[in-house]
Amino acid sequence: MKPKSNKKPGKPLVLRFVTSNPHKVEEAQNILKGYGIKLIQKDVNCDEIRAEDVSQVAYACAMLVSKKFKGNFVLEDSGLFVKALNGFPGVYSKVAYGKIGTGGILRLMRGCSDRSAQFRCSVALMLGGRMRVITGICNGTITHAAKGKGGFGYDPVFKPHGSKKTFAEDLVYKSRVSHRSRAFRVLGRLLAKKR
Amino acid sequence: MKPKSNKKPGKPLVLRFVTSNPHKVEEAQNILKGYGIKLIQKDVNCDEIRAEDVSQVAYACAMLVSKKFKGNFVLEDSGLFVKALNGFPGVYSKVAYGKIGTGGILRLMRGCSDRSAQFRCSVALMLGGRMRVITGICNGTITHAAKGKGGFGYDPVFKPHGSKKTFAEDLVYKSRVSHRSRAFRVLGRLLAKKR
Repeated sequence: MKPKSNKKPGKPLVLRFVTSNPHKVEEAQNILKGYGIKLIQKDVNCDEIRAEDVSQVAYACAMLVSKKFKGNFVLEDSGLFVKALNGFPGVYSKVAYGKIGTGGILRLMRGCSDRSAQFRCSVALMLGGRMRVITGICNGTITHAAKGKGGFGYDPVFKPHGSKKTFAEDLVYKSRVSHRSRAFRVLGRLLAKKR
Repeated sequence: MKPKSNKKPGKPLVLRFVTSNPHKVEEAQNILKGYGIKLIQKDVNCDEIRAEDVSQVAYACAMLVSKKFKGNFVLEDSGLFVKALNGFPGVYSKVAYGKIGTGGILRLMRGCSDRSAQFRCSVALMLGGRMRVITGICNGTITHAAKGKGGFGYDPVFKPHGSKKTFAEDLVYKSRVSHRSRAFRVLGRLLAKKR
Protein backbone atom coordinates (compact mmCIF):
# COMPACT_ATOMS: atom_id res chain seq x y z
CA MET A 1 0.00 0.00 0.00
CA LYS A 2 1.41 3.36 -1.03
CA PRO A 3 1.55 5.95 1.76
CA LYS A 4 -0.81 8.90 1.33
CA SER A 5 1.08 11.99 0.24
CA ASN A 6 -1.16 14.65 1.89
CA LYS A 7 1.12 17.37 0.57
CA LYS A 8 -1.49 19.89 -0.57
CA PRO A 9 -1.19 23.16 1.41
CA GLY A 10 -3.94 23.40 4.00
CA LYS A 11 -4.64 19.71 3.99
CA PRO A 12 -3.47 18.06 7.20
CA LEU A 13 -0.74 15.45 7.06
CA VAL A 14 -2.30 12.23 8.29
CA LEU A 15 -0.06 9.97 10.36
CA ARG A 16 -0.89 6.71 12.05
CA PHE A 17 0.10 6.77 15.73
CA VAL A 18 0.96 3.20 16.67
CA THR A 19 -0.05 2.76 20.31
CA SER A 20 -2.58 0.99 22.48
CA ASN A 21 -2.86 4.02 24.77
CA PRO A 22 -5.49 6.65 23.78
CA HIS A 23 -4.10 9.11 26.39
CA LYS A 24 -0.86 9.29 24.41
CA VAL A 25 -2.76 9.98 21.18
CA GLU A 26 -4.68 12.80 22.87
CA GLU A 27 -1.54 14.43 24.27
CA ALA A 28 0.36 14.18 20.98
CA GLN A 29 -2.64 15.36 18.91
CA ASN A 30 -3.02 18.46 21.08
CA ILE A 31 0.53 19.44 20.15
CA LEU A 32 0.61 18.34 16.52
CA LYS A 33 -2.67 19.98 15.48
CA GLY A 34 -0.77 23.29 15.63
CA TYR A 35 1.52 21.92 12.92
CA GLY A 36 -1.29 20.72 10.64
CA ILE A 37 -0.87 17.06 11.54
CA LYS A 38 -3.74 14.69 12.18
CA LEU A 39 -3.07 11.49 14.11
CA ILE A 40 -5.07 8.30 13.78
CA GLN A 41 -4.54 5.61 16.40
CA LYS A 42 -3.34 2.25 15.15
CA ASP A 43 -2.95 -0.66 17.53
CA VAL A 44 0.10 -2.87 16.90
CA ASN A 45 1.53 -4.70 19.88
CA CYS A 46 5.24 -4.15 20.56
CA ASP A 47 5.19 -5.16 24.22
CA GLU A 48 7.68 -7.97 23.73
CA ILE A 49 10.46 -5.55 22.80
CA ARG A 50 12.87 -4.62 25.58
CA ALA A 51 16.11 -2.67 25.54
CA GLU A 52 18.15 -0.45 27.85
CA ASP A 53 16.57 2.84 26.82
CA VAL A 54 13.27 4.08 25.41
CA SER A 55 15.04 5.27 22.23
CA GLN A 56 16.18 1.70 21.49
CA VAL A 57 12.69 0.34 22.21
CA ALA A 58 11.08 2.95 19.92
CA TYR A 59 13.56 2.18 17.15
CA ALA A 60 13.13 -1.61 17.43
CA CYS A 61 9.36 -1.32 17.59
CA ALA A 62 9.29 0.97 14.51
CA MET A 63 11.41 -1.54 12.61
CA LEU A 64 8.97 -4.29 13.55
CA VAL A 65 5.90 -2.23 12.61
CA SER A 66 7.44 -1.20 9.29
CA LYS A 67 7.51 -4.87 8.28
CA LYS A 68 3.76 -5.14 8.79
CA PHE A 69 2.58 -1.67 7.77
CA LYS A 70 3.89 0.24 4.76
CA GLY A 71 2.35 3.66 5.45
CA ASN A 72 3.78 6.66 7.34
CA PHE A 73 3.55 6.36 11.11
CA VAL A 74 4.82 7.54 14.45
CA LEU A 75 5.14 5.60 17.66
CA GLU A 76 6.68 6.36 20.98
CA ASP A 77 8.12 4.64 23.99
CA SER A 78 8.35 6.43 27.28
CA GLY A 79 9.46 5.66 30.81
CA LEU A 80 10.07 7.02 34.26
CA PHE A 81 13.70 6.65 35.35
CA VAL A 82 14.14 7.04 39.11
CA LYS A 83 17.72 7.73 40.20
CA ALA A 84 17.53 6.10 43.65
CA LEU A 85 16.07 2.95 42.03
CA ASN A 86 18.92 2.64 39.51
CA GLY A 87 16.65 3.80 36.71
CA PHE A 88 13.72 1.53 37.62
CA PRO A 89 11.01 1.26 36.29
CA GLY A 90 12.56 2.73 33.09
CA VAL A 91 11.73 0.71 30.00
CA TYR A 92 9.59 -1.51 32.27
CA SER A 93 7.36 1.44 33.29
CA LYS A 94 4.21 0.12 31.65
CA VAL A 95 4.45 -3.40 33.05
CA ALA A 96 5.57 -2.18 36.51
CA TYR A 97 2.63 0.25 36.57
CA GLY A 98 0.28 -2.64 35.85
CA LYS A 99 1.77 -4.76 38.63
CA ILE A 100 2.71 -2.36 41.45
CA GLY A 101 1.24 1.01 40.37
CA THR A 102 2.23 4.44 41.70
CA GLY A 103 1.85 3.01 45.23
CA GLY A 104 4.66 0.58 44.49
CA ILE A 105 6.99 3.38 43.42
CA LEU A 106 6.16 5.32 46.61
CA ARG A 107 6.83 2.23 48.76
CA LEU A 108 10.14 1.62 47.01
CA MET A 109 11.10 5.26 47.61
CA ARG A 110 10.23 5.30 51.32
CA GLY A 111 13.18 6.72 53.19
CA CYS A 112 14.99 7.88 50.02
CA SER A 113 16.26 11.45 50.31
CA ASP A 114 17.34 11.69 46.67
CA ARG A 115 13.98 11.71 44.89
CA SER A 116 15.19 12.89 41.50
CA ALA A 117 13.64 11.25 38.46
CA GLN A 118 13.41 11.72 34.75
CA PHE A 119 10.59 11.07 32.31
CA ARG A 120 11.86 10.16 28.84
CA CYS A 121 9.89 9.85 25.62
CA SER A 122 11.35 8.70 22.33
CA VAL A 123 9.27 9.19 19.20
CA ALA A 124 10.08 7.17 16.09
CA LEU A 125 8.84 8.68 12.85
CA MET A 126 8.63 6.58 9.71
CA LEU A 127 8.01 8.87 6.74
CA GLY A 128 8.48 7.86 3.13
CA GLY A 129 10.43 4.77 4.22
CA ARG A 130 12.96 6.73 6.33
CA MET A 131 13.13 6.63 10.11
CA ARG A 132 14.01 9.26 12.62
CA VAL A 133 14.02 8.97 16.43
CA ILE A 134 13.50 12.07 18.62
CA THR A 135 13.82 12.05 22.42
CA GLY A 136 12.19 14.45 24.89
CA ILE A 137 13.23 14.61 28.53
CA CYS A 138 11.56 16.10 31.61
CA ASN A 139 13.44 16.25 34.91
CA GLY A 140 11.67 16.32 38.24
CA THR A 141 11.16 14.54 41.55
CA ILE A 142 9.05 11.75 42.99
CA THR A 143 6.56 13.07 45.53
CA HIS A 144 5.92 11.47 48.94
CA ALA A 145 2.26 10.84 48.09
CA ALA A 146 0.13 10.60 44.96
CA LYS A 147 -1.55 13.91 44.13
CA GLY A 148 -4.02 14.90 41.40
CA LYS A 149 -6.49 13.10 39.19
CA GLY A 150 -5.43 14.24 35.70
CA GLY A 151 -3.10 12.59 33.23
CA PHE A 152 -2.30 8.90 33.47
CA GLY A 153 0.37 6.43 34.63
CA TYR A 154 2.90 7.85 37.05
CA ASP A 155 1.65 11.46 36.64
CA PRO A 156 0.31 11.68 40.26
CA VAL A 157 3.77 11.02 41.77
CA PHE A 158 5.95 13.08 39.40
CA LYS A 159 6.59 16.77 40.06
CA PRO A 160 8.48 18.45 37.20
CA HIS A 161 11.21 20.96 37.97
CA GLY A 162 9.82 24.50 38.08
CA SER A 163 6.44 23.50 39.48
CA LYS A 164 4.98 22.82 42.92
CA LYS A 165 2.38 20.50 41.46
CA THR A 166 2.46 16.99 40.01
CA PHE A 167 1.70 16.34 36.34
CA ALA A 168 -1.68 14.96 37.46
CA GLU A 169 -2.48 18.22 39.27
CA ASP A 170 -1.47 20.58 36.47
CA LEU A 171 -2.12 19.30 32.98
CA VAL A 172 -1.52 22.74 31.46
CA TYR A 173 2.02 22.81 32.80
CA LYS A 174 2.43 19.15 31.83
CA SER A 175 1.51 19.97 28.23
CA ARG A 176 4.24 22.66 28.20
CA VAL A 177 7.16 20.77 29.71
CA SER A 178 6.48 17.04 29.57
CA HIS A 179 8.85 14.60 27.90
CA ARG A 180 6.10 13.69 25.41
CA SER A 181 5.18 17.26 24.54
CA ARG A 182 8.85 18.14 24.04
CA ALA A 183 9.43 15.20 21.70
CA PHE A 184 6.24 15.81 19.71
CA ARG A 185 6.96 19.55 19.42
CA VAL A 186 10.32 18.75 17.82
CA LEU A 187 8.50 16.29 15.56
CA GLY A 188 5.95 18.97 14.60
CA ARG A 189 8.70 21.45 13.67
CA LEU A 190 10.56 18.78 11.71
CA LEU A 191 7.46 17.87 9.72
CA ALA A 192 6.59 21.54 9.15
CA LYS A 193 9.99 22.04 7.50
CA LYS A 194 9.47 19.05 5.24
CA ARG A 195 6.12 20.25 3.83
CA MET B 1 27.45 -29.13 13.19
CA LYS B 2 26.07 -32.55 14.07
CA PRO B 3 25.14 -33.01 17.74
CA LYS B 4 27.34 -35.43 19.65
CA SER B 5 25.55 -38.71 20.23
CA ASN B 6 27.19 -39.73 23.54
CA LYS B 7 25.09 -42.86 23.62
CA LYS B 8 27.69 -45.34 24.87
CA PRO B 9 26.70 -46.78 28.25
CA GLY B 10 28.69 -45.19 31.02
CA LYS B 11 29.68 -42.18 28.97
CA PRO B 12 27.92 -39.05 30.21
CA LEU B 13 25.50 -37.24 27.91
CA VAL B 14 26.99 -33.82 27.32
CA LEU B 15 24.53 -30.95 27.08
CA ARG B 16 25.19 -27.28 26.65
CA PHE B 17 23.40 -25.19 29.32
CA VAL B 18 22.65 -21.83 27.73
CA THR B 19 22.85 -19.26 30.54
CA SER B 20 24.99 -16.38 31.74
CA ASN B 21 24.48 -17.44 35.36
CA PRO B 22 27.06 -19.94 36.75
CA HIS B 23 24.92 -20.47 39.91
CA LYS B 24 22.22 -22.02 37.75
CA VAL B 25 24.72 -24.35 36.08
CA GLU B 26 26.00 -25.48 39.48
CA GLU B 27 22.50 -26.18 40.82
CA ALA B 28 21.42 -28.06 37.70
CA GLN B 29 24.70 -30.02 37.47
CA ASN B 30 24.33 -31.21 41.07
CA ILE B 31 21.03 -32.81 40.12
CA LEU B 32 21.85 -34.07 36.63
CA LYS B 33 25.13 -35.77 37.54
CA GLY B 34 22.99 -38.46 39.18
CA TYR B 35 21.48 -39.13 35.76
CA GLY B 36 24.80 -39.31 33.93
CA ILE B 37 24.50 -35.87 32.36
CA LYS B 38 27.32 -33.39 32.11
CA LEU B 39 26.49 -29.71 31.57
CA ILE B 40 28.77 -27.22 29.87
CA GLN B 41 27.88 -23.56 30.19
CA LYS B 42 27.25 -21.68 26.96
CA ASP B 43 26.55 -17.96 27.01
CA VAL B 44 23.91 -16.77 24.53
CA ASN B 45 22.01 -13.63 25.44
CA CYS B 46 18.21 -13.93 25.45
CA ASP B 47 17.52 -10.94 27.70
CA GLU B 48 15.44 -9.16 25.09
CA ILE B 49 12.74 -11.85 25.18
CA ARG B 50 9.71 -11.12 27.35
CA ALA B 51 6.42 -12.94 27.73
CA GLU B 52 3.75 -13.51 30.38
CA ASP B 53 5.25 -16.65 31.86
CA VAL B 54 8.68 -18.26 32.24
CA SER B 55 7.58 -21.22 30.08
CA GLN B 56 6.92 -18.86 27.16
CA VAL B 57 10.25 -17.09 27.70
CA ALA B 58 12.12 -20.43 27.83
CA TYR B 59 10.38 -21.62 24.66
CA ALA B 60 11.03 -18.39 22.74
CA CYS B 61 14.64 -18.26 23.89
CA ALA B 62 15.23 -21.90 22.88
CA MET B 63 13.77 -21.16 19.43
CA LEU B 64 16.17 -18.22 19.10
CA VAL B 65 19.20 -20.22 20.29
CA SER B 66 18.35 -23.12 17.96
CA LYS B 67 18.79 -20.76 15.01
CA LYS B 68 22.36 -19.98 16.08
CA PHE B 69 23.45 -23.30 17.61
CA LYS B 70 22.69 -26.71 16.11
CA GLY B 71 23.77 -28.95 19.01
CA ASN B 72 21.74 -30.32 21.90
CA PHE B 73 21.15 -27.86 24.71
CA VAL B 74 19.06 -26.92 27.70
CA LEU B 75 18.19 -23.48 28.98
CA GLU B 76 15.89 -22.23 31.67
CA ASP B 77 13.95 -19.17 32.65
CA SER B 78 12.85 -18.68 36.21
CA GLY B 79 11.04 -16.06 38.22
CA LEU B 80 9.56 -15.15 41.57
CA PHE B 81 5.82 -14.49 41.38
CA VAL B 82 4.51 -12.61 44.42
CA LYS B 83 0.73 -12.79 44.85
CA ALA B 84 0.26 -9.43 46.62
CA LEU B 85 2.30 -7.75 43.83
CA ASN B 86 0.13 -9.20 41.05
CA GLY B 87 2.87 -11.60 40.08
CA PHE B 88 5.69 -9.03 40.11
CA PRO B 89 8.64 -9.39 39.53
CA GLY B 90 7.74 -12.59 37.59
CA VAL B 91 9.39 -12.72 34.18
CA TYR B 92 11.14 -9.44 35.12
CA SER B 93 12.83 -11.03 38.14
CA LYS B 94 16.37 -10.71 36.81
CA VAL B 95 16.08 -7.07 35.76
CA ALA B 96 14.13 -6.11 38.92
CA TYR B 97 16.78 -7.80 41.05
CA GLY B 98 19.46 -5.72 39.33
CA LYS B 99 17.52 -2.48 39.90
CA ILE B 100 15.80 -2.82 43.29
CA GLY B 101 17.20 -6.06 44.76
CA THR B 102 15.69 -8.10 47.59
CA GLY B 103 15.38 -4.86 49.57
CA GLY B 104 13.00 -3.54 46.93
CA ILE B 105 10.76 -6.60 47.23
CA LEU B 106 10.70 -6.22 51.02
CA ARG B 107 9.81 -2.50 50.72
CA LEU B 108 7.03 -3.29 48.25
CA MET B 109 5.67 -5.92 50.64
CA ARG B 110 5.69 -3.72 53.74
CA GLY B 111 2.28 -3.97 55.38
CA CYS B 112 1.16 -6.90 53.19
CA SER B 113 -0.41 -9.70 55.23
CA ASP B 114 -0.66 -12.11 52.29
CA ARG B 115 3.00 -12.93 51.67
CA SER B 116 2.51 -15.98 49.48
CA ALA B 117 4.82 -16.33 46.52
CA GLN B 118 5.85 -18.90 43.96
CA PHE B 119 9.18 -19.60 42.33
CA ARG B 120 8.81 -21.01 38.81
CA CYS B 121 11.47 -22.52 36.59
CA SER B 122 10.88 -23.64 33.02
CA VAL B 123 13.56 -25.74 31.36
CA ALA B 124 13.62 -26.01 27.58
CA LEU B 125 15.42 -29.05 26.24
CA MET B 126 16.49 -29.22 22.61
CA LEU B 127 17.58 -32.77 21.79
CA GLY B 128 18.02 -34.12 18.30
CA GLY B 129 16.13 -31.13 16.88
CA ARG B 130 13.04 -31.66 19.10
CA MET B 131 12.05 -29.32 21.91
CA ARG B 132 10.40 -30.02 25.23
CA VAL B 133 9.58 -27.55 28.03
CA ILE B 134 9.36 -28.71 31.66
CA THR B 135 8.20 -26.47 34.51
CA GLY B 136 9.05 -26.80 38.21
CA ILE B 137 7.19 -24.85 40.89
CA CYS B 138 8.01 -24.13 44.53
CA ASN B 139 5.43 -22.44 46.76
CA GLY B 140 6.40 -20.38 49.78
CA THR B 141 6.27 -16.98 51.41
CA ILE B 142 8.21 -13.73 51.35
CA THR B 143 9.95 -13.11 54.67
CA HIS B 144 9.93 -9.77 56.51
CA ALA B 145 13.73 -9.49 56.32
CA ALA B 146 16.54 -10.99 54.24
CA LYS B 147 18.10 -14.02 55.92
CA GLY B 148 21.04 -16.23 54.96
CA LYS B 149 24.07 -15.93 52.72
CA GLY B 150 23.74 -18.98 50.46
CA GLY B 151 22.16 -19.28 47.03
CA PHE B 152 21.60 -16.22 44.86
CA GLY B 153 18.95 -13.76 43.72
CA TYR B 154 15.82 -13.66 45.86
CA ASP B 155 16.85 -16.72 47.95
CA PRO B 156 17.32 -14.67 51.18
CA VAL B 157 13.68 -13.48 51.18
CA PHE B 158 11.94 -16.70 50.06
CA LYS B 159 10.89 -19.31 52.60
CA PRO B 160 9.57 -22.49 50.95
CA HIS B 161 6.54 -24.25 52.40
CA GLY B 162 7.58 -26.92 54.92
CA SER B 163 10.64 -25.04 56.15
CA LYS B 164 11.32 -22.37 58.76
CA LYS B 165 14.38 -21.17 56.84
CA THR B 166 14.89 -19.22 53.63
CA PHE B 167 16.49 -20.81 50.58
CA ALA B 168 19.64 -18.80 51.39
CA GLU B 169 19.75 -20.27 54.91
CA ASP B 170 19.22 -23.91 53.91
CA LEU B 171 20.74 -24.89 50.58
CA VAL B 172 20.24 -28.60 51.30
CA TYR B 173 16.48 -28.11 51.58
CA LYS B 174 16.58 -25.78 48.57
CA SER B 175 18.23 -28.49 46.48
CA ARG B 176 15.39 -30.87 47.42
CA VAL B 177 12.34 -28.68 46.82
CA SER B 178 13.32 -25.72 44.66
CA HIS B 179 11.58 -24.91 41.38
CA ARG B 180 14.88 -25.46 39.54
CA SER B 181 15.71 -28.79 41.19
CA ARG B 182 12.18 -30.04 40.48
CA ALA B 183 12.37 -29.10 36.81
CA PHE B 184 15.86 -30.55 36.35
CA ARG B 185 14.94 -33.77 38.17
CA VAL B 186 12.10 -34.30 35.69
CA LEU B 187 14.56 -33.54 32.90
CA GLY B 188 17.03 -36.08 34.32
CA ARG B 189 14.37 -38.81 34.43
CA LEU B 190 13.24 -37.96 30.92
CA LEU B 191 16.77 -38.20 29.53
CA ALA B 192 17.44 -41.41 31.47
CA LYS B 193 14.46 -43.02 29.71
CA LYS B 194 15.71 -41.92 26.31
CA ARG B 195 19.18 -43.47 26.70
